[in-house]
Amino acid sequence: MIKVAINGYGTIGKRVADAVSVQEDMEIVGVSKTRPSHEAFIAKERGYPLFIADIAKKPAFETAGIPVAGTIDDMLKSADVVVDATPGGIGAKNKALYEKYGIKAIWQGGEDHEVAGFSFNSDCNYHQAIGRQFVRVVSCNTTGLCRIIHAMDREYGVTKVRAVMVRRGGDPGDIKRGPIDAVVLNPVTIPSHHGPDVQTVLPHIPIVTLAMIVPTTMMHMHAVQMDLKSEASREQVLDIIEKNPRMGLVRKATGITSTAELKEYAMDLGRCRSDLWENGIFEESVSVLGKELYLFQAIHQEADVVVENVDAIRAMTGAITDPQKSIGMTNKAMNFTAI
Amino acid sequence: MIKVAINGYGTIGKRVADAVSVQEDMEIVGVSKTRPSHEAFIAKERGYPLFIADIAKKPAFETAGIPVAGTIDDMLKSADVVVDATPGGIGAKNKALYEKYGIKAIWQGGEDHEVAGFSFNSDCNYHQAIGRQFVRVVSCNTTGLCRIIHAMDREYGVTKVRAVMVRRGGDPGDIKRGPIDAVVLNPVTIPSHHGPDVQTVLPHIPIVTLAMIVPTTMMHMHAVQMDLKSEASREQVLDIIEKNPRMGLVRKATGITSTAELKEYAMDLGRCRSDLWENGIFEESVSVLGKELYLFQAIHQEADVVVENVDAIRAMTGAITDPQKSIGMTNKAMNFTAI
Amino acid sequence: MIKVAINGYGTIGKRVADAVSVQEDMEIVGVSKTRPSHEAFIAKERGYPLFIADIAKKPAFETAGIPVAGTIDDMLKSADVVVDATPGGIGAKNKALYEKYGIKAIWQGGEDHEVAGFSFNSDCNYHQAIGRQFVRVVSCNTTGLCRIIHAMDREYGVTKVRAVMVRRGGDPGDIKRGPIDAVVLNPVTIPSHHGPDVQTVLPHIPIVTLAMIVPTTMMHMHAVQMDLKSEASREQVLDIIEKNPRMGLVRKATGITSTAELKEYAMDLGRCRSDLWENGIFEESVSVLGKELYLFQAIHQEADVVVENVDAIRAMTGAITDPQKSIGMTNKAMNFTAI
Amino acid sequence: MIKVAINGYGTIGKRVADAVSVQEDMEIVGVSKTRPSHEAFIAKERGYPLFIADIAKKPAFETAGIPVAGTIDDMLKSADVVVDATPGGIGAKNKALYEKYGIKAIWQGGEDHEVAGFSFNSDCNYHQAIGRQFVRVVSCNTTGLCRIIHAMDREYGVTKVRAVMVRRGGDPGDIKRGPIDAVVLNPVTIPSHHGPDVQTVLPHIPIVTLAMIVPTTMMHMHAVQMDLKSEASREQVLDIIEKNPRMGLVRKATGITSTAELKEYAMDLGRCRSDLWENGIFEESVSVLGKELYLFQAIHQEADVVVENVDAIRAMTGAITDPQKSIGMTNKAMNFTAI
Repeated sequence: MIKVAINGYGTIGKRVADAVSVQEDMEIVGVSKTRPSHEAFIAKERGYPLFIADIAKKPAFETAGIPVAGTIDDMLKSADVVVDATPGGIGAKNKALYEKYGIKAIWQGGEDHEVAGFSFNSDCNYHQAIGRQFVRVVSCNTTGLCRIIHAMDREYGVTKVRAVMVRRGGDPGDIKRGPIDAVVLNPVTIPSHHGPDVQTVLPHIPIVTLAMIVPTTMMHMHAVQMDLKSEASREQVLDIIEKNPRMGLVRKATGITSTAELKEYAMDLGRCRSDLWENGIFEESVSVLGKELYLFQAIHQEADVVVENVDAIRAMTGAITDPQKSIGMTNKAMNFTAI
Repeated sequence: MIKVAINGYGTIGKRVADAVSVQEDMEIVGVSKTRPSHEAFIAKERGYPLFIADIAKKPAFETAGIPVAGTIDDMLKSADVVVDATPGGIGAKNKALYEKYGIKAIWQGGEDHEVAGFSFNSDCNYHQAIGRQFVRVVSCNTTGLCRIIHAMDREYGVTKVRAVMVRRGGDPGDIKRGPIDAVVLNPVTIPSHHGPDVQTVLPHIPIVTLAMIVPTTMMHMHAVQMDLKSEASREQVLDIIEKNPRMGLVRKATGITSTAELKEYAMDLGRCRSDLWENGIFEESVSVLGKELYLFQAIHQEADVVVENVDAIRAMTGAITDPQKSIGMTNKAMNFTAI
Repeated sequence: MIKVAINGYGTIGKRVADAVSVQEDMEIVGVSKTRPSHEAFIAKERGYPLFIADIAKKPAFETAGIPVAGTIDDMLKSADVVVDATPGGIGAKNKALYEKYGIKAIWQGGEDHEVAGFSFNSDCNYHQAIGRQFVRVVSCNTTGLCRIIHAMDREYGVTKVRAVMVRRGGDPGDIKRGPIDAVVLNPVTIPSHHGPDVQTVLPHIPIVTLAMIVPTTMMHMHAVQMDLKSEASREQVLDIIEKNPRMGLVRKATGITSTAELKEYAMDLGRCRSDLWENGIFEESVSVLGKELYLFQAIHQEADVVVENVDAIRAMTGAITDPQKSIGMTNKAMNFTAI
Repeated sequence: MIKVAINGYGTIGKRVADAVSVQEDMEIVGVSKTRPSHEAFIAKERGYPLFIADIAKKPAFETAGIPVAGTIDDMLKSADVVVDATPGGIGAKNKALYEKYGIKAIWQGGEDHEVAGFSFNSDCNYHQAIGRQFVRVVSCNTTGLCRIIHAMDREYGVTKVRAVMVRRGGDPGDIKRGPIDAVVLNPVTIPSHHGPDVQTVLPHIPIVTLAMIVPTTMMHMHAVQMDLKSEASREQVLDIIEKNPRMGLVRKATGITSTAELKEYAMDLGRCRSDLWENGIFEESVSVLGKELYLFQAIHQEADVVVENVDAIRAMTGAITDPQKSIGMTNKAMNFTAI
């Protein structure tokens, strides 16, 4: 059993904890929280030992009825791998701590590539992660782009990607962030930084990305266009997508035309937290115009990286060396059936 | 086993179907849908026989891969009780059909009181529903108001209720309805029709309601004020709420101050569809100023009536005559633990 | 003086009326409304004679204190040109009426190209509109695309356009339309119909458009990419934009990064109704990568076609044959200074 | 001519500047800004001398093409009155500066009552402001409540006010603040701090307020209920409102039922920045039930205090001692005709 610690039990951390806890070859040794909150109650409910950064806050947790198992140092001592899911920019500061305990560590896409020196995506470069101490799982948007670009590149060769990313303003439970009624260019400059981030995983792909933020909490939406080296047919492309367990086709027959309906569908399917771990690629949108491929894909910002973290744990520990085997194990344990 | 049909497998219908299907004394004999949609796929996934109004549409369903079990008439013939969860105003037109088959029927709050001649709330008038052929479960807002008013009235006597209801514009999966950026008075006139609707259940309560619609999908929020006949203490009121299995206290220690965080909490708890079947009463808001009680309660528009429908089935069939026993059975089967 | 009637005094109609009324060579002979509303009060306030479709509704208007000048037929008899600003799809039905009175008519982009047989944009094809009886001013999005594509095509040659259009769900005063919290693909299919609509004005331009709808009321945002035939420099492109009176540069120095801030800026400038009649092209976004041009432009859905309607009136009546002269007159009268 | 400086040229400051500049007895001697922004360009466009806090930033302004007239100290030296419209909490820190220059100062409602020791509303306590050095104009919500409560109290006596305030999340041009999809209790506790703030102006009124924040930018909406000492009729109440130049009736005949339509109406009326300086009281909502008065009023958070600031200037300088005369002058200069 691989012993996994989750440093930062928030939007991503709580999902990774639940995903890890259902894997047959892993167990959660602890999760961390900086202050009592509804998520600390959930950790208690789930039975995850809760560790805190500042032990002086122990009474505050206990007064709220939440037992504290120790400090983050205590948690790290008992773990083989730590998944750092602290807020963007904080994770890098934890590196020294992980080095001190000689523990394997996974960071999220909110940190720079340099923090780990290796950026991971299960489909693209699982093999290169085997045995590494430090790995960064790329962001939700980069993960979604890498999956589809890599699949097309392997089959047809991709000579250029142009992607417009329409991003959610905040997560559903986030009441502070806007905008309320605006389209915000973020950044205004073109290309955005997302293209280079894709290149941390797929360095040979020429890609230009544009990004904006809109007043929704549900998912991101990508309008993706690729120049292909060799001829493709729409049917082939749909077939490739269908066969990839980390990409899902939002079928025309469902009548789904939006992120909101897609989340409702995931909810109705009984998915944990209504999560979509796969790219939600709209079947009807997939179009091959000459050597150009166009499609829309919805990316669930809270979820798609969760399964990547689980695979990264297996790769780094060397537990499984075949990416497809790990992907299959991860998905099966999470009851991740096709949309 | 009480055989239950669900006429209208949408927002409410799909939830009632799942709630019924986990009750030990009930089973789903069928659900109905007018056209193929993502929800028809869910019915198939759940294994609910799917019946359709217009048999001419059978090929359209089958082309989409959704088997059709027969017509709505076929469904009704095999059921003891039908839960009508068709869109508001449609349900009344189905009454003749239910009379034709001599079947017991439950309508939702989108229909007028007169369609059933009896408006139901488990806490308030379960006994009066015993043996009835026709029952109307009141709307989500009326259900939420009835629960808290009745509980206070039984203990202290309520001489006046004033409630401002801030309503969601559309459900999360609804992409048509607005507003996008407005507060809409609906109605502009005071009092709104919600007060008289409460009186279909609690006829002796003087109540004035005001209602508006805002650009959110999450939940409704009620600002409730009651004049009490006898002295109350805040602690007593909290105690009454805590002991009522259909009302939940949103505790200060969770840090939750909004509908969005409350829905996130329900999601994290693993609730089916992240549903809140209980009134979400904010602990910190509960205030007793002289003989006036004030509080905020969040009402999940898609969920609170679901459990009422299950209880109504038991009352009408006479299966259980003790309301608390039915409420306990319903809640337990749904794994409805306190927030 | 050209006598202008406005059939449909709503979002577009009221703006065209005000724009026409300040032109030295035009006057408003009447506007029409189907029922009393806040806009009917505004017509009265502005002193525009109000005509109604159904004279039986005259008492309803008069009870509300709004004088009625006659029927739409009466209005048409006194006009040289009618601007049809009725809701999309209604305009086509009015064609017979306009033919009956032998009046020149302008439709909006909600109607098909075929209704007029000629689709208009001041920059692109003013000359071809001279003397025509029927003209269609293309939609706000098509207008915005035509302006920038035509300007680049004239200078560099455009061999391909790819545009992703992120559209507002409803106008600011529209309380019915959503979505509230979703990104809606509209249409899901690629390409969308917007490309062919651009080709009604610029038939030789190969263009692929993708469109989605988001929960905002402010403006549309276009992510535009063009393949250029000859080399361009960023400075040249900025210079062309700057010199075009119907395109505006949203300068980096203003700190504006969103539609909301841009509308605020137009408001602060004292623009009538805070309108942006020009394309709002974000200076910082303008990028030339090899022979590819990228940029973001914000399009005010309520406003950019207003000035086009004014020019179309001049072209059709033959009052002015030089497009730049008409554009200059229109802009000057509206106090349309650069953003 | 009263020389007025505006310290903080943002949402409120820019409006007060424009309002002051059209008064026949006042002039703007300068406005201040901390960094170049779109509003600094507007100050230049309007011809207001621009002063800056940190003279080291002068080159940054000048590079952007915005001339700098001097420091804030320079500005204060040339003014009789300063209107402090800096962000909430900053204003109090400026008090020492205003004392140093012996200048009269007005703060906004974001500051505590204690900063000025006197909280102002034109209708309620103009006389008490005469000759004062320091005055605080209460917040938009408090201003709106004071106007209607005072008017009813003067006529009928008000023994109790209960008000639920549904507040906008951010202003239209604010792209940072949320929520996007939530109703936020702010505060969760009851009563909110708004009641005591009303009592800084009307100390004898018993008032309980409840407040929440919703995802809109347009206006606040108040659901107001008052217990009256003597009998009132609906017609009388409407008459009082109609005669008060700072309260407007949103007439049923306009068909307006929301904040969005009301803002559109103000826009169509040609109001500067589409501002509603008056309470927007919905005619249809005004209801007298026994001795209880109910109504809905929309409050434009950016605007209603603007006219109060102008009156406060006149009162403090002693220029006009009759409140109705000042109100009339202010309104007339702003072309503030009834909605």
